[in-house]
Order: sequence, then structure tokens, then C-alpha cells
Amino acid sequence: MDNSPNPTQRPSFLEEQNSVSVVNSRMGNDVSPRMRRVMSAVVKHLHELTIEVEPTHDEWKQAIEFLTEVGHTCTDWRQEFILLSDVLGVSMLVETINSRRPSGATENTVLGPFYVPEAPRYPNGSNICLDGKGGPLVVRGRVTDLDGKPIPGALVDVWQTNDDGFYDVQQKGVQPDWNLRGVFTAEEDGSYWYRSTKPRFYPIPDDGPVGKLLEKLGRHPNRAAHIHFIVSAPGYDPVITHIFTDDCQYLYEDAVFGVRESLIANFKTISDAAEEAEVGLAGVDFARPYHFVETDFVLTKRADIDL
Amino acid sequence: MDNSPNPTQRPSFLEEQNSVSVVNSRMGNDVSPRMRRVMSAVVKHLHELTIEVEPTHDEWKQAIEFLTEVGHTCTDWRQEFILLSDVLGVSMLVETINSRRPSGATENTVLGPFYVPEAPRYPNGSNICLDGKGGPLVVRGRVTDLDGKPIPGALVDVWQTNDDGFYDVQQKGVQPDWNLRGVFTAEEDGSYWYRSTKPRFYPIPDDGPVGKLLEKLGRHPNRAAHIHFIVSAPGYDPVITHIFTDDCQYLYEDAVFGVRESLIANFKTISDAAEEAEVGLAGVDFARPYHFVETDFVLTKRADIDL
Repeated sequence: MDNSPNPTQRPSFLEEQNSVSVVNSRMGNDVSPRMRRVMSAVVKHLHELTIEVEPTHDEWKQAIEFLTEVGHTCTDWRQEFILLSDVLGVSMLVETINSRRPSGATENTVLGPFYVPEAPRYPNGSNICLDGKGGPLVVRGRVTDLDGKPIPGALVDVWQTNDDGFYDVQQKGVQPDWNLRGVFTAEEDGSYWYRSTKPRFYPIPDDGPVGKLLEKLGRHPNRAAHIHFIVSAPGYDPVITHIFTDDCQYLYEDAVFGVRESLIANFKTISDAAEEAEVGLAGVDFARPYHFVETDFVLTKRADIDL
Repeated sequence: MDNSPNPTQRPSFLEEQNSVSVVNSRMGNDVSPRMRRVMSAVVKHLHELTIEVEPTHDEWKQAIEFLTEVGHTCTDWRQEFILLSDVLGVSMLVETINSRRPSGATENTVLGPFYVPEAPRYPNGSNICLDGKGGPLVVRGRVTDLDGKPIPGALVDVWQTNDDGFYDVQQKGVQPDWNLRGVFTAEEDGSYWYRSTKPRFYPIPDDGPVGKLLEKLGRHPNRAAHIHFIVSAPGYDPVITHIFTDDCQYLYEDAVFGVRESLIANFKTISDAAEEAEVGLAGVDFARPYHFVETDFVLTKRADIDL
């Protein structure tokens, strides 16, 4: 009797034709279903990519060296893999997939690396521009639910760059602490307003391997000018988002693909007292001309999100 | 006249439906065709993977942290990204794609991280086992071309683990320098032979993030027992390969998927003088029983490889 193993039952060795199934069939029986699904898909796409581009040994080595350099660039205060995910559009895709909202709700976008929790709380109308740089700006709007009902007490947490294109945390000791950051509270009618400076575009950190990659791809590192918001209220799904200035030259070329049509805001210029009165800003203590943007936030009740 | 940009010509913002084309259309015009092809495919597969598995924010963060840890584990003497590529079968796939050889030629497999160039040259019959450990082994064979014609002067560069499962370079000061390494030269009839010890399985370095990943996947870190060879001769394509012991318990579970059917070698035991005479090893100065393996290498002329 032939006791040799049945060739049809014997595991196969890796070949171009079977590589995905050979690797994935090696997983143990106790692997969690989610881990199994994710890693099977990782292996499948890695192998499909490899077969599609047929990397030479040198190219494979370059890829290994690039990933190693990205890893070595990561420190406690810099995350080059997140940057890589950002510039390849993966971060924004993950954001999009995880935030399918009902039509009419404010759309979200990437959080970015410069959020700092526990910013100072200010009364409406306060000026968060502590360094006096740039063109003065009034931001005003309402926080409502999907039916347009005001959400009094909603928190509007904002942060942005100064007129040099830097966040306070990038220029410790240069900018005042908490420059261009603050938390405002919606009034009984859902309204909030504050004073600030018009944000400008700025480059993502481009002195590392991701910057070199962008250069090889013929891409610039600039983010379209924007203001960050996290708007939250008890019982509602918080929204992490930006508004983008409608006149930024990088609006259609944001380096991390964070722009959405619905997040482009119309930045007006208020030049005289008549215009000021027309939009109801007569009480603003700003020398004219100054910038003005109106932006409403529509939150969804937690139960409205189909999880 | 409406001077607003034509919406059909305006670049799109990233959505689930168009994310690959939005990211790839951002590439500049001067990007090299190869870079364009490779990075387009990278983006396509990364996005397809993301849409397929729909990672939560937490899972995405875990992936970023894993890659960062892999990067931080890389040093001048340890390459954890290569290890990751190895255990996911990518290294072997790249090896396979880059070495489609004519039928009959010796197949290649992964080089591995333990090759050291310029090993000592020995006359045929020398014993490269300098620590005296393990079961004695005779390795013998011929180096020929595809027509079976001997290639005198071909170099057979060999290296392997000792009986503890370590390479000399992993145990500097413990094993003698150059233990179980050597370069042999094929005789006029293409034959070579040398003495050594039977190799054993060993684990890849599994104390880092790749080891943790293997554990989560229910996989062990062991490589099937093998001997490394680089066989070369002027005018021929050098072959980087292993032979695997046919009795290793990990033959069908090599952690880096390096095994091929054609590379499994029949390790015999020579127990008495009759057996010794039968295989023509009467002159071997080994106490019986000892191991014996016969392995031939078939090289292809450089012109035989369709580049």
C-alpha cells in the first residue's frame, strides 16, 4: 500500500498562480474572523500589486528602504506613516467610509495632527487671534439638527494656522500659547460667532521621505487654506470637519484630499458701514475692510446614524 | 457670460467612487513612466483594500502603529520590513517573478539575511563543520548546463545553520568564524563534494512586531531545514537557491514560503560499508552512520534567459 501523502491534500508551495491562497491558508483556526478578513485582503492586494507591477529586486529593495525611512522618521511628535496615508488619499477614504451621513448633515473631513483638546472656552464674539497678524475675520453661524432646530449649548471647537501658515504648537515660544484656538457655545437660537484671522495655505511637513515621494510624483505639499472645527452636543454625533476659503489657489489640489464641495465657504469682504449693517455686524469692533464668513453646522442625532 | 469653471473640467474631490482616479490624476506630467505605473497601482490596491475591509478609525490607527513599530525595529543589522515581506509571501513572489527559468534549470529561492560574501575557498571533500556538532553529512553533486554538459570551474558557495539552528554570524564568539560556510569549485566532470552537518529548522527573529503578527495569525516562525547555495560560472546566470531536507517537520510550513518541490532533497543515511561503496563514498573519513545527499545544479547560459 502506498502510504505517501495524497498530493491533492498536501499543502502547495508558493507559485505565481496560487500565492494568495498558499499564504492565507497558513492562518490558524483560532484567528479572529475580523483579523482573518483583514489580513486575507492585505495579502491578496499585496500579491496582486506585486504581480501587476512585477517589481525588480532593486525596486523591491527601494520599497523596503522607503518604508524603513518612513518608520525612522516617526517620533513622538511626528507621524510620517499618517502623512503617507494622508498624501495617498487613504486617510480621507477611511474618513469617508466611516462617516456616511444623512443628506443635509455637515460632512466631515480629516482631523489632522494639530488638534489640541481642552482649548480655552470663550464667550461669543471673542477674538482668538492673539498675535494680531493677518486679515481680520468674523466667523458666524448656527448649529442645528437635520430639521433646522437650534441646538443651544452645542460646543464649537475651532483651530487654525496664523497668517504665517503655522499652528501655535508648531511655533512654541514664537506664537502666544493657544493662539487661534478656542471653544464657543451656541446660544438659545443655535448661533455662535467669534473673531479671528483669515487662514492661509501651508505645506505639510515635506522634509522627510513623504516629501521626497511627493516631489517624485510631481506634487506640491500644500494644504488648501482652512479652519478646523469639532462641533458637538449631547445626544448628537460630533462632526470633525473644516471649512475651506473659496479663494485659495490650492482648493482643488489639497495635498491630503480633504476638500469637499459642501465645505467650501464663501469668504466675503466687509468694506463699509452699509455692508456691515446689511449682514448684521454693526457691533463688530474691527477696522474695515475685514473678512466675514457664515457657516452653519447640522448635526445628526446619534440614533440617526445607521451603525 | 458665465466665467465660472466648467464643472466637467474642474478636478473632482475625493469620494469613495472616484478616490483612485482623484489621487492618481494629481501626479505631475514629468513623472517617469515606471514611477507612474508603480505608484498608480500602489494607490489602486491600497484604496481597493480600504474599501474592501472598511477599516474603523481604530483599525486604521492600529495599522499605522504596527508599521511604525516595524520601522522602529529596523536597525543596521535587522530588517523587520524584509521580514514582514517574507512572512506575507511577497519576497518569494518577487523572487519567482524575477526568475522565470527554462524547464530543467535549477529553481531559485530567497537569499535570506545570513549570506556573507567571500567565504573561504576549500578543495572538494573539505569539512566545513568547524564546531563538530550534529549528524555528519556528505553533500555531492554536479554542475551542468541545460544539456547535461559539465561546467568545470563553477563555484558552489554554501552556508547553513549549525545543529543548534544558528548561523555563525548570529553567534559571533560562540561558533568558530566561517563555521558551515565555504566555496567549492566544480572538477572537470562538473562534480563537487564537501562534508558538513545536517541542517536543522530554526525560527526567524520573532521577538518583534512581525513575530507578534505571526502569533495573531496562528502561525509559527520556523523555517524548514535547508542549506543555502549560490552556484555561478562565467557566462551563466548565477542561481541563488536552497535544498531542503525531505524529513523536516516544517517542510510544508516554511515561515517565508521558500520551499519548492524541485528543491526538496533526499537525505539518505549511510549505515555500513556496503551502502558506502554502493554510492561511491568509500573514501569518506566519517564514522558510520552518517547522512548523504546528492544534489545537482543546472545553470542557464545568460543568453538563455529571456530578459
